[in-house]
This record gives sequence, structure tokens and C-alpha cells, in this order.
Amino acid sequence: MKRKYAIVGVGGIGGYYGGRLAQSGQDVHFLCRSDYQYIKEHGLKVESVKGDFHLTQVNAYNDAKQMPPCDVILVCTKTLSNYQLKDILPPILHPDSLVILVQNGLGLEQALEKDLPDIKIAGATAFICSFKVRQGYIRHAEYGELSLSPYHACVADSLKQVALDLQQAGIPTQYVDDLNYLRWKKLVWNIPYNGLTVLMNASTDKLTFDADSRPLLRDLMREVIEAAAACGATIPFDFIDKMIASTEKMTPYSPSMKLDYEASRPMEIDTMYTCPIQTARAAGYEMKKTAVLEQQLRFKEKHRL
Amino acid sequence: MKRKYAIVGVGGIGGYYGGRLAQSGQDVHFLCRSDYQYIKEHGLKVESVKGDFHLTQVNAYNDAKQMPPCDVILVCTKTLSNYQLKDILPPILHPDSLVILVQNGLGLEQALEKDLPDIKIAGATAFICSFKVRQGYIRHAEYGELSLSPYHACVADSLKQVALDLQQAGIPTQYVDDLNYLRWKKLVWNIPYNGLTVLMNASTDKLTFDADSRPLLRDLMREVIEAAAACGATIPFDFIDKMIASTEKMTPYSPSMKLDYEASRPMEIDTMYTCPIQTARAAGYEMKKTAVLEQQLRFKEKHRL
Repeated sequence: MKRKYAIVGVGGIGGYYGGRLAQSGQDVHFLCRSDYQYIKEHGLKVESVKGDFHLTQVNAYNDAKQMPPCDVILVCTKTLSNYQLKDILPPILHPDSLVILVQNGLGLEQALEKDLPDIKIAGATAFICSFKVRQGYIRHAEYGELSLSPYHACVADSLKQVALDLQQAGIPTQYVDDLNYLRWKKLVWNIPYNGLTVLMNASTDKLTFDADSRPLLRDLMREVIEAAAACGATIPFDFIDKMIASTEKMTPYSPSMKLDYEASRPMEIDTMYTCPIQTARAAGYEMKKTAVLEQQLRFKEKHRL
Repeated sequence: MKRKYAIVGVGGIGGYYGGRLAQSGQDVHFLCRSDYQYIKEHGLKVESVKGDFHLTQVNAYNDAKQMPPCDVILVCTKTLSNYQLKDILPPILHPDSLVILVQNGLGLEQALEKDLPDIKIAGATAFICSFKVRQGYIRHAEYGELSLSPYHACVADSLKQVALDLQQAGIPTQYVDDLNYLRWKKLVWNIPYNGLTVLMNASTDKLTFDADSRPLLRDLMREVIEAAAACGATIPFDFIDKMIASTEKMTPYSPSMKLDYEASRPMEIDTMYTCPIQTARAAGYEMKKTAVLEQQLRFKEKHRL
């Protein structure tokens, strides 16, 4: 049985993963925003380290109400627009639809469940350097691994099927049992690097190799791991060494928050900083260093100096 | 008996306080650096909210060895050059000379005592907006209070005499028993405002009135007060409200570290951040938030972006 896929948001993440699924022969429906007209007319081009491709015929929509009900919905927007999902999703859902949040941060699935209590939810994290160059044109620069994990236990089997579809489309995909663990693990990198690239106006390599910011990165990672432990997710401390070593090998790069800041777009402070801080506090752990970054980022967002 | 004064460093602090002492008729000898030739020829001009004045004849020197031994030496340079005091001071000292460090930060007197074990030391903090506009020209914009406190108990009486001289010169001066308390109390303002004006590229008013940086300022002040308590200096927590309220009333202003940063000069990170952090740590208290600022500032100092 072939699954019908919906991609919500056709940026670096949705454009690449949705494009790969469509290229592999899956039935994929893209919900676009500003790019709708362009993609409708010219299709979607992907320039990728894993091979370029051009989808000339794309099922593009600018209104969810025009879309067919889909089996799997990959939400690939920034979390800042998640409050709109309660209006966007219902038209494309059937009773067994699976909504997968391919996003950064914490508390996303809980918030969505509050808005739409009856739907089936999973989470995903993407380890990828990919961004929209211009309308209908995505550049996938490096990596590409996806990790999927169920929020509702009942979706485990269908999520594993999705993982197979993704693998068949050439996307290295792993299935992870513990979503809480997966989300915190991603934060170990996201919290130090997203905030500090903005605040220090520096790329990942500069921060990683500098004798003063490197211990700051490590201190922040340690704090995230301690917070995760307080919240029931055990990440070993040597994960810090692995993250630093793998970032050392990366092509110098600007994480999503840095790109948002430079483009004068709002930043994902709520889901990447505030929610982890509050969740850890409720579990009895104060993320003191992370809280400094959070407040500095909120100030910076208003005063882009 | 009239005291002979030496002023080491003729910037915003030394130029103003030394100038006032000379204007009041004290015998004052100024050790200059780059301004020596100019001040020798044109004297020292002070533009002050408390009244302008021009000292046409100034005892200016560019070499301590040319100076007479003095009774009181006011060290008014940045702490970054304190390592030079062991060479600068000996020629201007007699056995009863009193060296007063009019500087910011912690651990200054201890470091000087290590370099020159036999001298008599006191500390002072200046609450003043004053800076050098150009060679031989100081602008005193606001405030001016000096607080003096003995490092060696034996200097208490002569320090009180100095306080009288300063008062007579029109400088509001108070004598404080506990130097450790005085130094930590100054840090309650200095740590949040000096670092954040640099890191956020914002003036004191912007930081104070913003809904996100204001709680960050308060959190940092609280941390300094907790560190002070661990180090034996009891500062009441309502001092935070007083500091915020008095900064609200201040003319928007750039603290010394911000001016140093903008002028591409080194910043007083060691004495204002590193030493307090290490001193608190030795007393069993981790200044976690302050340590984030310290590391960010060290990065910024190298990468002025």
C-alpha cells in the first residue's frame, strides 16, 4: 500500500525531504506559502551533495483545504508558526493520519496535542545543512540524517514504515524509541551553537576553535545534559566530545537561528530555549547559563544591532 | 601638615580627582603617558558639571624617577597596567607613603602586595561619569562620589585625612571600613552593565528599560550578591532595586568597558570577571551566569565583530 504524503512548508527541510520522497516515486503534496505560484509553474529544483534533481510537476497548494487527506504529514516549518497547525492540519487528516513534526526544540508535540487532542503524533530531528536559495530552489549542502520517534506509542509501526519509505528515497533514517531523549540530544548542539552564533556574530568553526568560546560551548552542553537527566533522558557526558569533534569537521556554517537573525526573521527562542528551561525547572534543575543566552537573544531580537 | 599627592594616570578619573586636588591648593604631581608633552605646555582643562577649571601650571612627569617621593599616591589607570606598578611606584614612595588604588574589580590590592610586600595600601571606588575627550582635556559629565577603604588596617587614620583633603577639594568622599564589601558592592553594578553594554551593543538605559534584559541584569546582580555573601560581604538583596532605580535616572551612558571595546583597547576582564569568579569559587560558590559573560567577552575581545 502506497502512502500519501503531505509536506507542510517547502524550505530547506521540507523542500529537500519532500523532494526526495517525490523523486523516489511517492505521492507527495506540498503546502507552500510565498513560493506557491513559482513552484506551480516551474516545479522544484534541488541542488544536493547527494545529486541534483528537478521535479517539473509538483502537487503544490497554497491552501490546505484544497489538499487531499494524507496518510503522513511532515511538518517542516519553523516552530514559530505551529500555533497555525490547528487550522492547517484538519483538512488534510483522516482518522489514521500520522503527523510528524520535523522541527527543533522541546514541547512541540505536547502543544500540538493540546490544540488537536485526537490526532496521532510523532517527532523528528534532522541533521542537515539545507536551505532555500530562492523561490523553488533548495540547496542541500551537507549531511541529511533524519531521526524519527513516536510521541503516541500507537504510531510506532506506521512510523517504521515511513522510515522505510525515507530510506528508499535515499535519506539515511533511523527510528528512535524515546522521543524525549531524541529532542534533548538535539538540544545539546542546538542550544550552544544557535544562540552563540547569533550573539557572538560568528560561524560554528570560529566558536569551536577559539580557546574561550570552546569551554563555553562545552559548559552549555554539560548544562543541557544535566537538564536532560533531570527530565529523564540519559545522555552520556562524552557526547560533548563527539559533538565538538564532529563540528570541528563540519564546513563552517550558520545554524537556522543565525540565518533567521540575519534575515530579520523571528528566532525560535520559545521552543529552543524557553521550553527546555521551564521543563528542566519543573524537574528541579535550573539551566542558569542557558537562561543568560535566552535573555540575551530576546533582547537581540528586538534590537538588531 | 600638607600632604604631597601623586596621581598615576591622567584619564577621566586621575585627571578629574587630581585636578580638583590641585585646584584646591594641594601639592599634586601627575605621572602622564601620551599626554605628557601637551599637559606640560598647556596644562590640564576640566569641563565639569561642578564647574569648569583650567590648571595652567601642572607638575607633569613622564617618568616616575623624576618625581619627588609623595605621601599619597592615587593610582587611576586601568587595572590592565597594574603589573607595571612594581616598577613605577618605588621611586615615588617613602616609608609612610599610602598607595590608593582608584580602580574597578577584585584582587587588586592583594596582587600589588605580592609585588611590593612592604608598602601601605588602600582601595577606592569612584562613582563617576568622566572621560578624556582629548589630550589634556577631561569631561566630567555626572556624579563624582569617591569611597575609600583601607587594605592594611594601619592606614585607617591617614586615609581619613585624605578623605578630608578630597572633601575640601569639592569631592563627595566617604570612608568605608570594609574594603572587601566595598569592592563587591561596586561589582553588583559593574558585572552586569559593563559586560552587557559590550555584548548587547547597547547603552545602560536600553538595557535597564527592556523587558528581557532587565531581568537578566537583576539575575546577574543577585548572583554577585550571593557570591559576595560566600566571600564574607553581606549586601542586602534590595540593593538590586536601588541600582536599577538609580541607573534608570542616569543619563544613558557607556561604562568604561564599552568605551574600551569601542576604542579597540583591551578590556578589564581579569579584575572585573575572572578574579571575582575564581574568588567565589574558592569560597564554594559558582558564578555560572557571570562566567557566561566572561567567556563571551574574551571571545569578543579577540573577534571585534
